Amino acid sequence: NPSEILPWISGNQVLIVTNEIVAPLYLDALKTSLEEKEVVDLILRDGESTKNLSTAEKIFDRMLQIPLDRTATVVALGGGVIGDMAGFTAACYQRGIPFIQIPTTLLSQVDSSVGGKTGVNHPKGKNMIGAFYQPQRVLIDISVLSTLEPAQFSSGMAEVIKYGLINDPEFFGWLENNLEPVLLLNPEVLEYLIEQSCLNKARIVELDEREGGVRALLNLGHTFGHAIETATGYGAWLHGEGVALGMVMAMYMSMEQGWVERADYDRACKLIERCNLPVNPSADFGARELKKLMGLDKKVQAGNLRLILSRGIGKAFVCDDYDEEALDKTLAYFAIG
Amino acid sequence: NPSEILPWISGNQVLIVTNEIVAPLYLDALKTSLEEKEVVDLILRDGESTKNLSTAEKIFDRMLQIPLDRTATVVALGGGVIGDMAGFTAACYQRGIPFIQIPTTLLSQVDSSVGGKTGVNHPKGKNMIGAFYQPQRVLIDISVLSTLEPAQFSSGMAEVIKYGLINDPEFFGWLENNLEPVLLLNPEVLEYLIEQSCLNKARIVELDEREGGVRALLNLGHTFGHAIETATGYGAWLHGEGVALGMVMAMYMSMEQGWVERADYDRACKLIERCNLPVNPSADFGARELKKLMGLDKKVQAGNLRLILSRGIGKAFVCDDYDEEALDKTLAYFAIG
Repeated sequence: NPSEILPWISGNQVLIVTNEIVAPLYLDALKTSLEEKEVVDLILRDGESTKNLSTAEKIFDRMLQIPLDRTATVVALGGGVIGDMAGFTAACYQRGIPFIQIPTTLLSQVDSSVGGKTGVNHPKGKNMIGAFYQPQRVLIDISVLSTLEPAQFSSGMAEVIKYGLINDPEFFGWLENNLEPVLLLNPEVLEYLIEQSCLNKARIVELDEREGGVRALLNLGHTFGHAIETATGYGAWLHGEGVALGMVMAMYMSMEQGWVERADYDRACKLIERCNLPVNPSADFGARELKKLMGLDKKVQAGNLRLILSRGIGKAFVCDDYDEEALDKTLAYFAIG
Repeated sequence: NPSEILPWISGNQVLIVTNEIVAPLYLDALKTSLEEKEVVDLILRDGESTKNLSTAEKIFDRMLQIPLDRTATVVALGGGVIGDMAGFTAACYQRGIPFIQIPTTLLSQVDSSVGGKTGVNHPKGKNMIGAFYQPQRVLIDISVLSTLEPAQFSSGMAEVIKYGLINDPEFFGWLENNLEPVLLLNPEVLEYLIEQSCLNKARIVELDEREGGVRALLNLGHTFGHAIETATGYGAWLHGEGVALGMVMAMYMSMEQGWVERADYDRACKLIERCNLPVNPSADFGARELKKLMGLDKKVQAGNLRLILSRGIGKAFVCDDYDEEALDKTLAYFAIG
């Protein structure tokens, strides 16, 4: 819809960064709505495995081949990977040019498009290289979710459930009661779900834009999840799948500590499983491997491994005072590779 | 001097980024002064040709090999290239970790360590990729200048002269009167020179941290100079050499426009030449080549080539309303390759 995007583009040049899955669906329509501008595009391969520095270099090459000047706008048309790559390169190109996000997955609509974090992966750690960079505008169109693969939709649901688990037990209950219309993509229900998710994230980010304190709560399930993603090679497990099992592990470990009741653990597992997300032990990785990879994760503060643990549904907290035994038991139970 | 650097380092890990020229001179002493920390180093090759994304990747690899956590400090021990590379990678590593600069060249002491700009080169343009990122602290030791090669010292003098030419005619006059003790590295005179230069730059940067307006004045000589550097391949001409001839060209073009008197042009040339910096036409590049490269320079605003021109010593101004003929005459006169 041209009336939505045009007012947010001040210069004359636009670079659309998208991928091979999204381009055939929406690129032409977006270009048409931008026809009064000088528009070029760059179509990347799909998936987390393209989120690295060599792809960033490809984008810089394209920017300089045109060349884009400082008033040009970069538009990210795609999911979280596209948002990260386009955002990071927009942040660095000439030390920052305008940037707009059009997230086309549930995951990017409820998570990566809020908060201004961009990052690319390094073989030794996820999102290790990046920038804090806010888009001029995020344009969310719910109708694009109808073309999303079911596994991708589920992956987004992991982050949605996360907001309930962190500090919004009412939202968690709403999800339990409304999961069927959500999975059937009922527009009104989806709109509420996305709105609540973005509000939840924005509230936490506002308190702490640069992640000194409460923002860490958003990493619930992510320290385990990133290790799973790294262990299995970026792309084998979807991000939300890693986060889903990671949240289950965080709840399990909290239960081991005596902080979470079995009933709350079961509720979490049940909702996650209903979204077709993993909750069971996996042979894709081993306990020792995961522990090592978690030690490298950027949530590490001066050598102490900080984790987001829980005292129940909606009661996550930042914890660096736990028994290593509870961690080891959790890893031994879930990481059976 | 440990009492100077230690208070500025909060975490336990330190990565010193330096180069093969500076390391044998100062690395051991710096490490000794940091011996209570966990210190590692990375020694890069010298020169502008290392200022690129593949060197950035090398630094990221080193950071992750250790691995550095979020409380680690990156120390740049070297000139502008080291400051840029260390600053850019510190800005991007885990989206930003602390950073300290110890500039060891005149150029980096009077220019690149003030203002928070970091950048790396792309084959198609200088400093095209970068970040705004402020160091925690800049530690300047004048005594290191005694080990600097004369050509490197001269290169720094180009930026010093620039501050006089932009808006400080008194400082320009002081330089004319005190150049001998400066070139003999008289410490008191050098201290005044560095202080005035940093103050001059800081005043302009403060008015305009993100370069919308007056900060552009700092680019006096740089649009020409960057094109010269790009045309000759990064490293063949020192940065200050390009800037020196660039300033001469800006003054010449302003004279062509009738804005600068011959006497002022001659004063500028004389002072630049006394520092052993280029003021004469060069066969290293051609007029057409330079013009094309200037069109790519990041000082381009939505297609209009903005230049920093002059109305006399200490009277530089931002100009996008000039005769193309004056530009062409200037290029034809100086670029004879």
